Amino acid sequence: MTRGPEDAEHPEYTEGSDGLDDVVVACDIGGTAIKAGLVDTRGFVRHDHGVPTPFVAGDGAATADAVLAEVVRTTARLREAAAERGGRVVALGVIVPGLVDAEAGLARYSENLGWRDVPFVRRLTKATGLPVGFDHDVRAAGAAEQRLGAARGRRDVAFVPIGTGISASLVLDGRPYAGGGWAGEIGHLDAGSGLPCPCGGTGCLETVASASAIRRRYEERTGRAVSGAVDVAARLERGDPDARVVWDAAIDALAVSLTGLAAVVAPELVLIGGGLSGAGDALLAPLRRALDARLTLQRRPELRLAGLGDRAGLLGAALLAWERVGVRVAEPGPPASRPAVHRSHAADPAT
Amino acid sequence: MTRGPEDAEHPEYTEGSDGLDDVVVACDIGGTAIKAGLVDTRGFVRHDHGVPTPFVAGDGAATADAVLAEVVRTTARLREAAAERGGRVVALGVIVPGLVDAEAGLARYSENLGWRDVPFVRRLTKATGLPVGFDHDVRAAGAAEQRLGAARGRRDVAFVPIGTGISASLVLDGRPYAGGGWAGEIGHLDAGSGLPCPCGGTGCLETVASASAIRRRYEERTGRAVSGAVDVAARLERGDPDARVVWDAAIDALAVSLTGLAAVVAPELVLIGGGLSGAGDALLAPLRRALDARLTLQRRPELRLAGLGDRAGLLGAALLAWERVGVRVAEPGPPASRPAVHRSHAADPAT
Repeated sequence: MTRGPEDAEHPEYTEGSDGLDDVVVACDIGGTAIKAGLVDTRGFVRHDHGVPTPFVAGDGAATADAVLAEVVRTTARLREAAAERGGRVVALGVIVPGLVDAEAGLARYSENLGWRDVPFVRRLTKATGLPVGFDHDVRAAGAAEQRLGAARGRRDVAFVPIGTGISASLVLDGRPYAGGGWAGEIGHLDAGSGLPCPCGGTGCLETVASASAIRRRYEERTGRAVSGAVDVAARLERGDPDARVVWDAAIDALAVSLTGLAAVVAPELVLIGGGLSGAGDALLAPLRRALDARLTLQRRPELRLAGLGDRAGLLGAALLAWERVGVRVAEPGPPASRPAVHRSHAADPAT
Repeated sequence: MTRGPEDAEHPEYTEGSDGLDDVVVACDIGGTAIKAGLVDTRGFVRHDHGVPTPFVAGDGAATADAVLAEVVRTTARLREAAAERGGRVVALGVIVPGLVDAEAGLARYSENLGWRDVPFVRRLTKATGLPVGFDHDVRAAGAAEQRLGAARGRRDVAFVPIGTGISASLVLDGRPYAGGGWAGEIGHLDAGSGLPCPCGGTGCLETVASASAIRRRYEERTGRAVSGAVDVAARLERGDPDARVVWDAAIDALAVSLTGLAAVVAPELVLIGGGLSGAGDALLAPLRRALDARLTLQRRPELRLAGLGDRAGLLGAALLAWERVGVRVAEPGPPASRPAVHRSHAADPAT
């Protein structure tokens, strides 16, 4: 689904074009890396840049300080890069993992990064002088899929990245829905596994169907190391019965949880992303069958792979930045008339 | 929560006032009765009227014709009543049960009334000459609770009437969310009962926790007839062990399903309505405890009884009518400053 500059729909885009007009700086802060880039009004990434996420073990506040300093440095570097090509940075968009209060501009909590209540918007506004857009990483990525990716022009969409965890980013009636930052926690729906979950619940979807859980359960069962959940999927084709048991349990649990999602918000489209989406049809085909068998009177969601791969977050951050200055990058509509993504890569199958 | 004209917050309202300005006709079409009324711009019901729902056994199309004719007759009668008091009817709002495509103006399907694909808006616009607002009964009632009732001023609300069935009407970010007419079907979430459901699924919430299911399960278990689910609740106080078993199963299943609802849409407030809400604290207190025990990282919804009783539908129909002519009856805000409901009654505990 991602496209390069050769894409016939975008003849106006010329690879290597030097001129830049107004652009935004987009930053996708992850547990291990900060991806950053300059993004134009058409949703094209014009320059990108990645650095490791600084981390101070056991000290969330120090980690937050280091991350904020890195974002400020990266923003300065990208402003220089824009200026060298005659461009101007008009806003900054930042997304973070964990629990986010977008309205208050706060990163409430991140289990991986250890921070609590970090005023991202206030501190970055002060340090850069730019208008700052800010939100949760998965929610922003879901909005990008709905505006620029595989869900373009669809009103009611759930973007479900499956990696170390599982959540759903919801776009309802064409607008991202956050539920105060709490919506879409389908990883903790009871999917009937009966297993204890670190959240304190039992049977949660994440205990059997996250990419991490699939890998762990296979390794525990067989004593054989695998490179990740996609590797478990690859073993299905070779008739590995342990891979079959682990994989089928994940598919069943996903079908249970997506049936619950369909009953409550009735998405017309469910986009599967994250590391597990690298399994492609080994995931989608049985999941479609299992879901079909479970759905009764619920709206039947179309099931597809996400389209923007690991660029979804960066583009989501860019959309937030553009929104802060009143620019709407793309209106929902038929995909053929929409801006595409420059220099994107296929979904990273790493788990 | 419902209030009469003596309400000190509305000193400007005078019972028996003869003068009417612009009003709308609101019609709540139910399986057994059509409730209709004249409603003013403040959300006061100024005149009401009820007739039995006409029904032609085995012929959904004929039932639809008879219902539409009755709505047209009722509208004419209410227009006369308005005119006699110097008022003018400016729009008509109609709500129906079943599956509804509000955008297309169609009643897609009703199991009780037997109709399919009835163009309510087109036919009523032609017959009355009025602008017609139209939607699903429970969704409209939920919107009324959020605008005028117990959820005033709250953004993310689930209104859950529990009667012959169970569904949730969702207001998300302050706007009713329909999911193309399919959202909120929590009655068919798997709540773990293991019982077959007429929908084709197994374990659905409705199999143990609807008011009808509670009554049926108690009667099957004991061979004793009860007047309804609220009667089963009353027997709890007398130490009836069968009532305890049936009631506890309903509470557990409700807690499972509301936990799923909290994970997916994270309502800040869940309003319980419908016949079962007549059980009051016998329902709310154990349900709060069971829900507290199940929630882990989900947003904890406040749990309250709905406020508008059996007037919620009529008021929801009125809101739809006013919206059709560009009038917003009440803005979300603190309850104390909101219009109230005239001549409303407490929730009808009938199941």
